[in-house]
Amino acid sequence: MTTHDASLIDVARAAGVSTATAGRALGGYGQVSERTRERVLAAAAELGYRPNSLARSMVTGSTHTIGVVVTDVANPFFATALRGITDVTSPAGFEVLLANTGGQLASEQRAVTVMSEKRVDGMIVAAARPGEGAHLRHAMDAGVPVVLIDRQVSGVPDADSITVDNDHAAAEAVAHLVELGHRRIGVITEAGDQLARVRSGTRRRGLFPSAVRLRGYVSALRSAGLDVDETLVASARYDRESAYDAMTRLLGLAHPPTAVLCTDNVLASGAYRAVQDRGLRMPAEVSLIGFDDEPWTTLVRPGLTIVEQPTYELGARAGRQLLDRIAATEGPRRPQHIQLRAKLVARGSTVP
Amino acid sequence: MTTHDASLIDVARAAGVSTATAGRALGGYGQVSERTRERVLAAAAELGYRPNSLARSMVTGSTHTIGVVVTDVANPFFATALRGITDVTSPAGFEVLLANTGGQLASEQRAVTVMSEKRVDGMIVAAARPGEGAHLRHAMDAGVPVVLIDRQVSGVPDADSITVDNDHAAAEAVAHLVELGHRRIGVITEAGDQLARVRSGTRRRGLFPSAVRLRGYVSALRSAGLDVDETLVASARYDRESAYDAMTRLLGLAHPPTAVLCTDNVLASGAYRAVQDRGLRMPAEVSLIGFDDEPWTTLVRPGLTIVEQPTYELGARAGRQLLDRIAATEGPRRPQHIQLRAKLVARGSTVP
Repeated sequence: MTTHDASLIDVARAAGVSTATAGRALGGYGQVSERTRERVLAAAAELGYRPNSLARSMVTGSTHTIGVVVTDVANPFFATALRGITDVTSPAGFEVLLANTGGQLASEQRAVTVMSEKRVDGMIVAAARPGEGAHLRHAMDAGVPVVLIDRQVSGVPDADSITVDNDHAAAEAVAHLVELGHRRIGVITEAGDQLARVRSGTRRRGLFPSAVRLRGYVSALRSAGLDVDETLVASARYDRESAYDAMTRLLGLAHPPTAVLCTDNVLASGAYRAVQDRGLRMPAEVSLIGFDDEPWTTLVRPGLTIVEQPTYELGARAGRQLLDRIAATEGPRRPQHIQLRAKLVARGSTVP
Repeated sequence: MTTHDASLIDVARAAGVSTATAGRALGGYGQVSERTRERVLAAAAELGYRPNSLARSMVTGSTHTIGVVVTDVANPFFATALRGITDVTSPAGFEVLLANTGGQLASEQRAVTVMSEKRVDGMIVAAARPGEGAHLRHAMDAGVPVVLIDRQVSGVPDADSITVDNDHAAAEAVAHLVELGHRRIGVITEAGDQLARVRSGTRRRGLFPSAVRLRGYVSALRSAGLDVDETLVASARYDRESAYDAMTRLLGLAHPPTAVLCTDNVLASGAYRAVQDRGLRMPAEVSLIGFDDEPWTTLVRPGLTIVEQPTYELGARAGRQLLDRIAATEGPRRPQHIQLRAKLVARGSTVP
């Protein structure tokens, strides 16, 4: 559909004034008589004239738009964080240009390039591959501030980051189980293939949250003087059925775990189902801990013990941090790496 | 943070060519020698030159951006629809400018104006107030195609719309209960104050989905030869606690309902909890139906019977419809009003 878009020239002609006068009248600056102003406004309304932000942005250098790049906006974690971002940036007059990468690096690279060319004033990025930051490096070098959320990224140590302290979150969950007397504690994780790396105690950036949580699990076991038993580390893909299978495998071991930590909510829902289907009682026969406080965790009986991430706050803090960077007029400042604390909420799946 | 943004002029100067030549070399059009092209590209890389989409959009009249306006992106319904939209529009080269209105009309009006001024190529809108469409009328009159999702809006009958057939969805749920022998069927609804209006059989646009579902409930009872008992219509706000209270009121009636329909997922979760807390058995003592297939509905025992909305499809269809409108070069065509069918999924909360 194409319709003729009235220009400033059209408005000026219809009002019988110069373009400069029409611009002053519509912009509300400079000297214009009240009568002329009214005539210009009437002509603009008549012609359906819309101010053009593109033209304004070309002059001011600011689009009042920020880019937000997430892996899956349908994931409640990112949907809630996004709400936190818009609740902070919208009242400040910034719109959000959203990209959903599906966790594909190529898609993220394209989105970052397009957003940069659309001249966003800054970006908030949940990276598809924490090990790959070259495209973000490029955007920052071009003067676009980047705030990382949920995961740090290699190659851009100077980008601000807002993450949850996943080491601490997982370790606290394990410590809770140790305190309850558990000695055989399993984990269902997407990062099973990185067990060797996290056992080596790597502190490097560029790990997925799932790998950081696995690291927290390992270090908490060690702190409690327990060995890491590789048969208790069950790999699963990010879906409920895969987690169901992983839990079933753990429960079928000759020496099964008495408690299991699931490193996210989807995995926990599959594991919970597997316990139900085997007819095992929680917490008497097996204890379970998940991540994130989704509605189901309090509707099931027993309720699920969870590690609650400050998801909305994560988004809101990222929004504030980016607005700060955009507003800053001095040269580069030191990057801010903010780690938010998760909170253990004990329920019937671990505590009788 | 402000850094100097290299312009085409800077690139041309560094490469020792004219601006026109630099533009041709970077744009990949017109005649430029291979050696010159390489020199220009090297200069652009050296200076960190980014093409400016704003400038291109000023010339072409297209921003390759669509606006998406929803009431709450943290609501799984809209998050999933948004995923459907981006999965369709992103491969077509369109970015999404997202606004979250919190259900506030003023916020929606502002978002629509800003998006229009930012020259989006079209908009997909889940309206905060289906009765108020003047701002959408204005955008359409300015040549911006609008596709409505989830709810129709008064005043813009010429806007395309993709909605779920909520009349049919609610009626099918009630018919399921009637077939199982229920005669006292209650409803928990956000639209209780519109009972009189929906009983009058209004077909007008501008109703919230909750009101349309209440209309479906009323008409299904009538079709079954049952009276509408106002004491069985329980009003609740859009939160779990309010629905919990509404269900508790219904169960405490002298003649309580034997089955209850909840017109959305959040209301259903509160009602389910209330049944659990009163120690009533489902479906023997009371039956329950909700909307939308969230994870919890299959994790609770018994599972919840639900009306499953094609949420992802709703978004994907809206995306395709808008791309169609944007691509259409002829004059106005007749508006498309697409109604998608919801599907009843019977589980243990209604079927023993």
